[in-house]
Amino acid sequence: MRIDGLQCGHFNRQAFEELRAGGLGCVTNTIAVWENASETMAAIGRWRHLARENADLVTIARTTADIEAANASGRTAVLLGTQNSSPIEDRIDFVELFHDMGLRVMQLTYNIQNALGSSCYEPEDSGLTRFGRNVIAEMNRVGMVVDLSHVGDRTSHDAILASQRPVAINHANPRELFDHARNKRPKVLDTLAEHDGVLGLSMYPNIAGPYAGTLDKWCELVARTAERIGVRHVGVGSDLGRFMTTTDLDWMRRGRWTHGPEYGAGSPDRPGMVEDPEWFTTSADFAAIPGALRAAGFSAEETEAICGGNWLRLYREVIDLAS
Amino acid sequence: MRIDGLQCGHFNRQAFEELRAGGLGCVTNTIAVWENASETMAAIGRWRHLARENADLVTIARTTADIEAANASGRTAVLLGTQNSSPIEDRIDFVELFHDMGLRVMQLTYNIQNALGSSCYEPEDSGLTRFGRNVIAEMNRVGMVVDLSHVGDRTSHDAILASQRPVAINHANPRELFDHARNKRPKVLDTLAEHDGVLGLSMYPNIAGPYAGTLDKWCELVARTAERIGVRHVGVGSDLGRFMTTTDLDWMRRGRWTHGPEYGAGSPDRPGMVEDPEWFTTSADFAAIPGALRAAGFSAEETEAICGGNWLRLYREVIDLAS
Repeated sequence: MRIDGLQCGHFNRQAFEELRAGGLGCVTNTIAVWENASETMAAIGRWRHLARENADLVTIARTTADIEAANASGRTAVLLGTQNSSPIEDRIDFVELFHDMGLRVMQLTYNIQNALGSSCYEPEDSGLTRFGRNVIAEMNRVGMVVDLSHVGDRTSHDAILASQRPVAINHANPRELFDHARNKRPKVLDTLAEHDGVLGLSMYPNIAGPYAGTLDKWCELVARTAERIGVRHVGVGSDLGRFMTTTDLDWMRRGRWTHGPEYGAGSPDRPGMVEDPEWFTTSADFAAIPGALRAAGFSAEETEAICGGNWLRLYREVIDLAS
Repeated sequence: MRIDGLQCGHFNRQAFEELRAGGLGCVTNTIAVWENASETMAAIGRWRHLARENADLVTIARTTADIEAANASGRTAVLLGTQNSSPIEDRIDFVELFHDMGLRVMQLTYNIQNALGSSCYEPEDSGLTRFGRNVIAEMNRVGMVVDLSHVGDRTSHDAILASQRPVAINHANPRELFDHARNKRPKVLDTLAEHDGVLGLSMYPNIAGPYAGTLDKWCELVARTAERIGVRHVGVGSDLGRFMTTTDLDWMRRGRWTHGPEYGAGSPDRPGMVEDPEWFTTSADFAAIPGALRAAGFSAEETEAICGGNWLRLYREVIDLAS
């Protein structure tokens, strides 16, 4: 089972065919970054249409049984995910309601402080708030994956400890290996692993730096990360943004909180869209990853775990165990 | 099985105890009149808390099996209902999403024209719109009861014909028996019966007029209605508004579309809250209805049908048959 822990961008039949070409049994998408409840519902509506129109290629999954059934039938299961808690509009009750509608992954903050905690770009990370703790408890209860990818280190650390279930950092890299605000410090990753969470390693050039250069180089990132936190806690989270435009990028970076300029994971020197690594321009390129990991020295079992097994284990422990 | 096809007002532990005292196995509530998607979700959230805190008395039902299980265990099943389509925010996709969240009954319009059709107070009822037809088809597909109580006669007639499943007029009376804009003309009721729908008769004084005076008089309303459209198509829809205040009434009547004055089912001569009939001030008074219907000449079987069996049959044909 191959799983991509996070993609953004637009999906259409071509993107679905690329998921199949990559052999992916499951992908977490991004249906909201700044959207409110109603706008996120509209996105779920669009996804239901997409899934119905492409039912030969994809299905929206609510359980790991759905994921396994999709994979067994040669289709890709989509886990509905958001990269912000904006859909719940600061209402604890909306966690359960979005779970009813199929949402299975929610990142606590995107690129700015919110009522739950601090993003990775705050000058001062004040930690997980009391409301943030309540939201995590509710996500634990209903069976929704807590994601911390864009969340600040202190808030992330608090969240890992607050959660009764393993959490995800579904698209980020170790700060030790590439120094960027979006990447996680050793203490956070060590605590993530102690609590059996999973880190989805990304080849997005802005946060992978030199490791994005070649697939072999990226496998070195995987190997060095696995050395520190253990193979069991490493997965893939490509952050692929298929069919994304600069308009999308501006929305993701500015949302409604600034008129900009705002560079997100970029910088004044790298302000716009960056080229995908030439070895990973679509989901189809996922197909080459297992072989490269074997060549880099991982066993068949380790490769299986990194390419999907670890995510599947986490999903089983979170989304199948709802009270 | 005793069922009240529609109540508004506030629910609390006392109201739930009254439902039990009335022997009610099921009631449809009113979680929205003008509220949008997010506000209606907040209302669903409040109802989940209410139901959890009073789980010994009530449960929120999604199927008729839930209703029957509640009734068998001495509890009342609440069917979540709205008296307007405002929650779907004119988005066809939101029908299915609110169904996911447990909504099972939706009235197409409240007291003013909307994108689906005309209310009973329009000077000109222009009929069910193309969007209204789509919404009905979607409600049929997902398993949500179409309610027409405050809907104009022409739009109601169109809706009955458009629906592939029986529809409800869950709180209104025959215009022939009491001439009021909220009551339905003979043609609508005949077509409702031909398509196996159910009319919930109300004792709300503004629309029951002299028939609200005594329980015996109200049983005469039931008898005369059943004579015209058949016992099978008659139920109870009290429209009881327990713990309602004039603030609530102003909201229901004015919503966001007028600064008023707006009298709803009242009039300049009867502008405010009206007294409940003394024989029906709480749900507990439902307990007296079966005996009074028997005394009015209905058989035990007919009484059972009117007091709940007909609603249960309709719910079975609508909410259990989702595709």
